[in-house]
Amino acid sequence: MIILAVFYHVVNNGFMAIENVNSKNLRVLGIDASLRSTGLAVVEASGSRMCAVWHGRIRNPPTRPLSGCLLAAEEEIAAQIEAYQPQAAAIEGVFFAKNMRTTLILGHMRGVLIAQCARRGIPVYEYEPRRVKQAVVGYGGAVKTQMQQMVMKLLVLDKPPQEDEADALALAICHLHNATRLRLTGQEPL
Amino acid sequence: MIILAVFYHVVNNGFMAIENVNSKNLRVLGIDASLRSTGLAVVEASGSRMCAVWHGRIRNPPTRPLSGCLLAAEEEIAAQIEAYQPQAAAIEGVFFAKNMRTTLILGHMRGVLIAQCARRGIPVYEYEPRRVKQAVVGYGGAVKTQMQQMVMKLLVLDKPPQEDEADALALAICHLHNATRLRLTGQEPL
Repeated sequence: MIILAVFYHVVNNGFMAIENVNSKNLRVLGIDASLRSTGLAVVEASGSRMCAVWHGRIRNPPTRPLSGCLLAAEEEIAAQIEAYQPQAAAIEGVFFAKNMRTTLILGHMRGVLIAQCARRGIPVYEYEPRRVKQAVVGYGGAVKTQMQQMVMKLLVLDKPPQEDEADALALAICHLHNATRLRLTGQEPL
Repeated sequence: MIILAVFYHVVNNGFMAIENVNSKNLRVLGIDASLRSTGLAVVEASGSRMCAVWHGRIRNPPTRPLSGCLLAAEEEIAAQIEAYQPQAAAIEGVFFAKNMRTTLILGHMRGVLIAQCARRGIPVYEYEPRRVKQAVVGYGGAVKTQMQQMVMKLLVLDKPPQEDEADALALAICHLHNATRLRLTGQEPL
């Protein structure tokens, strides 16, 4: 088995990437959607081993109008899909205790991100926050710092990832744990 | 003033179109978003005269998954923008008495539609349902059939448009009424 490992740092946009190219592995795009800071991460599994291929954020400054935020998200996720070619995506389920306005705005962003995956034939699976925590930390009530620490440990990162990126990495890990069981559970993509 | 009027029926997709080509007129795309049946309409104003350039619907069958609905909406609105080149768009504001799940799903669809307008540099203005009814019927509590009848009358259509299409036509009419006052009211696009 030939593994081509390419390590590089994209300095000008703050993204850190470690690329592991192996066409037989399963690559999952984790998406932690929000209007101002959407976490994105690509995690690859080879057997029981997992590695972080890339993680970063789509930042939208507070002064940017909604339409500009959606356009930026559309362009950014399209670029990352093109660059890393994931075979599936995992997005966080919406926590319905949030208020209507927040839910609506989050819906806008999710719509754009899901559509971009659909355009490229990437199935998007939805996971509730508790289930993600269960998969990563082993406890559905885990707090943010526990998630960040466990993501760092599982993916052998040299520092805890930023919060939104940790959530995106965790979503990808959760899907990789679940991927082989999808036919048994009957879970359909969105 | 030369007006080239092209009348045609697109039989195979059920759309009815009446095209009035005049580059100096203001063309507005009305959008009545929903997951299963999004109304779209293009209305053109020349001075105080308005005419329906085109109206139709994006239909998504109940069996189509969310991602497929979003993709269909993205492709359909892009095709109509390309065909009719509107300079602005008007979308219905969300009525917040709806439940969270409905609001979230509607948000997904709105996000995709707004992003497609943004991609083509078309500003999207939001109008509350009451304001649209006020602009078209003269009464914010008007019922659907009153709206359909008044839209038919204002645009000199030969029959009342289907409900979602009537709402989209009404949104475009509302924006055309408002367009000259935007600088005074300070209303910003989304």
